[in-house]
Amino acid sequence: MGQMVNIVQNNVMRITALFLLIFIGNFVLSPVVAQDRYVLVIHGGAGTILKSQSTPEQEKRYKESLEQALHAGQLVLQKGGQALDAVEAAVRVLEDNPLFNAGKGAVFTNQGKNELDAAIMDGRSLAAGAIAGVTTIRNPISTARAVMEQSEHVMLTGLGAEQFAKEKGLELVDPSYFHTPERWRSLQRARHRDSLDNLKKSQLPLAKEEAMLIRKEKYGTVGAVALDKHGNLAAATSTGGMTNKKWGRVGDAPLIGAGTYANNLSAAISCTGWGEYFIRLVMAKSICDQMEYGGRSLQDAANEMVLKKLPALGGDGGLIAVDKEGNIAMPFCTEGMYRGYIRQDSLNGPIKKEVALFKN
Amino acid sequence: MGQMVNIVQNNVMRITALFLLIFIGNFVLSPVVAQDRYVLVIHGGAGTILKSQSTPEQEKRYKESLEQALHAGQLVLQKGGQALDAVEAAVRVLEDNPLFNAGKGAVFTNQGKNELDAAIMDGRSLAAGAIAGVTTIRNPISTARAVMEQSEHVMLTGLGAEQFAKEKGLELVDPSYFHTPERWRSLQRARHRDSLDNLKKSQLPLAKEEAMLIRKEKYGTVGAVALDKHGNLAAATSTGGMTNKKWGRVGDAPLIGAGTYANNLSAAISCTGWGEYFIRLVMAKSICDQMEYGGRSLQDAANEMVLKKLPALGGDGGLIAVDKEGNIAMPFCTEGMYRGYIRQDSLNGPIKKEVALFKN
Repeated sequence: MGQMVNIVQNNVMRITALFLLIFIGNFVLSPVVAQDRYVLVIHGGAGTILKSQSTPEQEKRYKESLEQALHAGQLVLQKGGQALDAVEAAVRVLEDNPLFNAGKGAVFTNQGKNELDAAIMDGRSLAAGAIAGVTTIRNPISTARAVMEQSEHVMLTGLGAEQFAKEKGLELVDPSYFHTPERWRSLQRARHRDSLDNLKKSQLPLAKEEAMLIRKEKYGTVGAVALDKHGNLAAATSTGGMTNKKWGRVGDAPLIGAGTYANNLSAAISCTGWGEYFIRLVMAKSICDQMEYGGRSLQDAANEMVLKKLPALGGDGGLIAVDKEGNIAMPFCTEGMYRGYIRQDSLNGPIKKEVALFKN
Repeated sequence: MGQMVNIVQNNVMRITALFLLIFIGNFVLSPVVAQDRYVLVIHGGAGTILKSQSTPEQEKRYKESLEQALHAGQLVLQKGGQALDAVEAAVRVLEDNPLFNAGKGAVFTNQGKNELDAAIMDGRSLAAGAIAGVTTIRNPISTARAVMEQSEHVMLTGLGAEQFAKEKGLELVDPSYFHTPERWRSLQRARHRDSLDNLKKSQLPLAKEEAMLIRKEKYGTVGAVALDKHGNLAAATSTGGMTNKKWGRVGDAPLIGAGTYANNLSAAISCTGWGEYFIRLVMAKSICDQMEYGGRSLQDAANEMVLKKLPALGGDGGLIAVDKEGNIAMPFCTEGMYRGYIRQDSLNGPIKKEVALFKN
């Protein structure tokens, strides 16, 4: 009888201890692992991307490349890593891929150089880092992150940014690393066209295909946004800018608020398109503000900016975004946008993945 | 009697014609001259500006300099000129004045150079122009305007921006033009302090005055915002950046949305302070968005950003702003801000003017 009581008492104590452990465990872990959902969205540029002009092989190459980038970011997010690490990992894959206008594969300036820009932002702290106009940094997104984490500054430019990268031990390459034959041909076409005077241009209107090719070659950016299992948001964008650009032109990609923004209170956003219009609208921050101060949904705010205000001003392009609830937006007002996402909404739930190039 | 009738008829016709003229005149002119109100607000930087540390002579010099800049902008606005011309004119005066950290009087970089940044924006069209990291352009604000009006771009940097200025016939100077003895001494002090290692710094805590002096010397910007008689808004900002800056650092001044923004639907804003924090908050655009999407007043939005969100993040500084109704805001969370405004609220109404340096 005494033994029975002891067994019961022991079991009660065990069960109590177990509940206590679960309670404490939850209490301790809850601020760290807030949810089991993670989302990663990426883009490889928006522009004249038409199914009628793509071969199945080309389409396959782009899709496989997007999937590689998604995979790199997912590896981080799946195991409970940071959104910041995931967007950096995904963008590095796209930077290393010559198909996209960022890192290797960057377009050429008017002077035949590859000048790269990048920005990254942490939605937890509003910490941000950016570089512009660099020619020897293999992965600009990682230097942007070093600016954020290892300097007092947000934005470094030109030779100074390269000196910083060198001091911090980041990988530098000879400028010839960025030289790809396809982008070089693009520059020659753009130079030829820009050398024609206006009279000749109007007398010799471009064939529609040629005009679309030039447009396609002029812009391009890569980017990633993520929501991690801890509920944190991050955004990253990297680009080679505009083919045949002159005068040290900087687009929206490295400008915090224009091409890149992340705030845990609203959303993480990365833009691509005709940079000047994204700067004038301060695109990414405007969407976050409409959510935070105007009570709009991510989808409504993103659609209004990209499908209405951007074309009304004369610009075009698109963006990717994820909000704190895991909602995704990928609007664009061009023919297509290289894009994809991967997400898991609960611990053992299905992993959803999609990559796309054209309009649905 | 017949003559009497004729005189009456003539007078009736004259009066009718006069009324008709006034009616047509109003009809024709009303879209152009929407109101007779104009407002110009300027700043010359925020920071450690204390009455206890200023001599009456210094105070007088700063006040007279601010009044000169107000006068230059008022000349434009009084006669019905554009807000854009007024802010450019006011900023040029401040750029030419060695008292302020912009144009002549710019602080030195770590390498002993003067690298200048500027931005301008037109609230009518959201057109914008900016340059960063230039060393030979006498009036950066006028080159920023040329970028806006004479290029397809918004932002040009470094040697490219200088090449652009040369092509457009803007005034270039030898870099020695920007060399002022006071700023050179500031660099030596900053270099000395930055060369001390952290141990020494902690062993030799700075005297309060010395710390304030360093802080005062580190930042500084000039700017102007205006509402013209046609109801249009414009903003302009120009700076030499941060004393002893390295690595091609760019602050908020030339970043559209961060240090400078103008939109006829909301407000025109120019910021000054610890640039990195203004970039992370995208300060100027955030205030415009809170007005446009959140229905807040300029004063409420500006106060919340400058007096709450900015210090909460660890930054400091101030801004000047005017909205489409002519309301002014000039909040700052530093000891002082060089600032002033001039306004006339009706055609023959009194002209109100005020310049101030310290907290009220």
